[in-house]
Amino acid sequence: MQALPGFRDFLPDDCAVRSYIFARWREVARRYGFVEYDGPVLEDLHLFVRKSGPEIVKQLYDFADKGGRAVALRPEMTPTLARMVAASHRDFRKPIKWFCIPQMFRYERPQRGRLREHYQFNCDLIGEAALDADVELIAICIDVLRAFGLTAQDVVVRISDREFWIDFFRAQNLPQERWQEVLEVIDKSEREPREKIAEQLGQLARPVFEILDGGGRSEKLQRLVEGLQQRGLAEFVRVDLRIVRGLAYYTGVVFEAFDCQGKLRAIAGGGRYDNLIHQLSDGAASLPAGGFAMGDVVLGELLRENATAHAQMEAAVAAQQRLDLYVVIAKEERRSDAIAAIQCLRDASYRVDYALTPTKVGKQFQAAEQLGAQVAVLFGDEWPQVKIKVLATRKEQLVPNEELLAHLARFPSLSSLSS
Amino acid sequence: MQALPGFRDFLPDDCAVRSYIFARWREVARRYGFVEYDGPVLEDLHLFVRKSGPEIVKQLYDFADKGGRAVALRPEMTPTLARMVAASHRDFRKPIKWFCIPQMFRYERPQRGRLREHYQFNCDLIGEAALDADVELIAICIDVLRAFGLTAQDVVVRISDREFWIDFFRAQNLPQERWQEVLEVIDKSEREPREKIAEQLGQLARPVFEILDGGGRSEKLQRLVEGLQQRGLAEFVRVDLRIVRGLAYYTGVVFEAFDCQGKLRAIAGGGRYDNLIHQLSDGAASLPAGGFAMGDVVLGELLRENATAHAQMEAAVAAQQRLDLYVVIAKEERRSDAIAAIQCLRDASYRVDYALTPTKVGKQFQAAEQLGAQVAVLFGDEWPQVKIKVLATRKEQLVPNEELLAHLARFPSLSSLSS
Repeated sequence: MQALPGFRDFLPDDCAVRSYIFARWREVARRYGFVEYDGPVLEDLHLFVRKSGPEIVKQLYDFADKGGRAVALRPEMTPTLARMVAASHRDFRKPIKWFCIPQMFRYERPQRGRLREHYQFNCDLIGEAALDADVELIAICIDVLRAFGLTAQDVVVRISDREFWIDFFRAQNLPQERWQEVLEVIDKSEREPREKIAEQLGQLARPVFEILDGGGRSEKLQRLVEGLQQRGLAEFVRVDLRIVRGLAYYTGVVFEAFDCQGKLRAIAGGGRYDNLIHQLSDGAASLPAGGFAMGDVVLGELLRENATAHAQMEAAVAAQQRLDLYVVIAKEERRSDAIAAIQCLRDASYRVDYALTPTKVGKQFQAAEQLGAQVAVLFGDEWPQVKIKVLATRKEQLVPNEELLAHLARFPSLSSLSS
Repeated sequence: MQALPGFRDFLPDDCAVRSYIFARWREVARRYGFVEYDGPVLEDLHLFVRKSGPEIVKQLYDFADKGGRAVALRPEMTPTLARMVAASHRDFRKPIKWFCIPQMFRYERPQRGRLREHYQFNCDLIGEAALDADVELIAICIDVLRAFGLTAQDVVVRISDREFWIDFFRAQNLPQERWQEVLEVIDKSEREPREKIAEQLGQLARPVFEILDGGGRSEKLQRLVEGLQQRGLAEFVRVDLRIVRGLAYYTGVVFEAFDCQGKLRAIAGGGRYDNLIHQLSDGAASLPAGGFAMGDVVLGELLRENATAHAQMEAAVAAQQRLDLYVVIAKEERRSDAIAAIQCLRDASYRVDYALTPTKVGKQFQAAEQLGAQVAVLFGDEWPQVKIKVLATRKEQLVPNEELLAHLARFPSLSSLSS
């Protein structure tokens, strides 16, 4: 028996990678003053249909529960967020800065960078309409990527503005009912042949291409770049009006992060959605908002392919699983003394392991090495002294058992002290 | 719209409690040399039916996915663990010490201490048959409870041994097909009237009551208690042969943790299941094993009701959400200098927030207080000096902007340095 297609087992190494990614997400979000929330993995089906229309059901893990309710595994976080914000926003000062790391589910054909489940870092800033909020969101997106060891040579955030296009459509007297359709053509403009795009744009082709070829000037995006310049992050961004994001609910600045080599799907994406909370909450809350999401699958691929990021990740993954100390019981008469010491060491937050049953000393040292212990502590003939051996250098030292803790405090690299 | 019945929304305070519980679980598991793994939240339905029989389906969130597969949200971790261990155990040294914190789902009537979803800390030690492994598992269970600030006055781990009862049944010539039934009667013996139990036990009533009333002596459990004594944990345990655990697959030592006041359901439970991996993997792996699980719902209730544990939790929850620094922009001319400084402070891992748009100074200080910032850094007339104000003491100090980081390093309580 195996995991279902498109679902992952997380063996310890995989789980350590996941924890590493989650830890960076949390750490950077908190630096920006975001606090974590979460919602249920299973929700009322209508919550998702109301936002995305009945078409979404085809891609959902939906079913009737034993009480006959139509339910679905969440495919995204925004409907849950809107529900929670609508119910509780009066209890929170604005802007609300919330993040979460939910697991999401979509019934799709599994392919590279796209499984049937993934984890997704979501950051949303709610209750602030000013452009500074957009700057803050793009900055955190960049700083998250930087926290993984990625640089402006590795990733680029392409920024754009839906409002720019809306203004353009108005100037061109394009009827409002055609806006979304034209935005979708623009969205496809870099993936499809120019002639095809031109055909679909009709009379709009010439002015649209002028903009896409670099002729578009947006004072708002200029200010956005300046905001990022103040933070020293401008080298990570590129104004690119081709980015419009498929989803209909974006109202202003939108952005997507990509690997510079263009080998992978988008790493992250987001933007401003000033009307969505009002709409999803049936008017219970009206708050301007923006946010972005970053999944763990594409990001994970990039981290494995980028040498610097990969080395940083591997070191963190090893540190996460590594023991501090391995207690070697060289004489079975010392077992109960050793176990008492192990309890003290664990109480002092050291990660400690030992052989549960009588085992040859050589085998115990082998286990110490395999488990990544930094120091072995040997209980044997020297009792009531114990022998401390630094495994990397093979340096040994005898210390009285009762001074063991004090002595170990001098090893600053042991994880209880450094993490 | 609300969350489904029996499902929880995690607003930031709730999410911080969840993170606090998860962090203690992880921390103690790692001290014992356990490493984290996880499996999919959705599994093939047959995986669960094979272990628990078709009866389990009544309690499951099961459905047919769009590919027609019978699938279910996981109600427990053991079948997934057995599947993963059977597939990969040759890659790992024994004993395998794995933990996980999966979310579980059961379609049951929601009631106190029992929702339709919960998180469950699972620790399993696989590949070691010796009693020392049972000691290690009970010790970690106790140390996890201690990590929450609970003492032997608050919680008790009742330990028992299935094998003791099996030996007794053999001595009484009880046919093997009746063992499970009698074990279930013993399991109910403290919740149901003695006469009813006596009736169900029939001829076995007298010898069984003799044991339950304290007449049972188990040399194995005596050694187990001694093992915990070596660790200074014996005061947390009580031999209690009434504990047999309902599930059929336990083969040896079993245990359950309770609050001493007896107000709540079991906090944790586990035991040895030496045949289960063989059975669940169709013989692909044959490994003795033991493990236990602790849910977040009952534990959470206990932590809220226990004064010491509650205070410790509240402090951790506040620290988790608290800012380090709030940057007050007293003159708008200083905004871009302030933003450059904020970027440096966040890069140095401080948690920093500020007013995204022009805001009265008084309001900014109010935000600083509400967000739990410890220090306010004020950019105003004093530029290129900035004013540092410790919010608890209201002590102020002027420092040159370029010395800000060096100066803040002297505040050891700021979270970037302390966590």
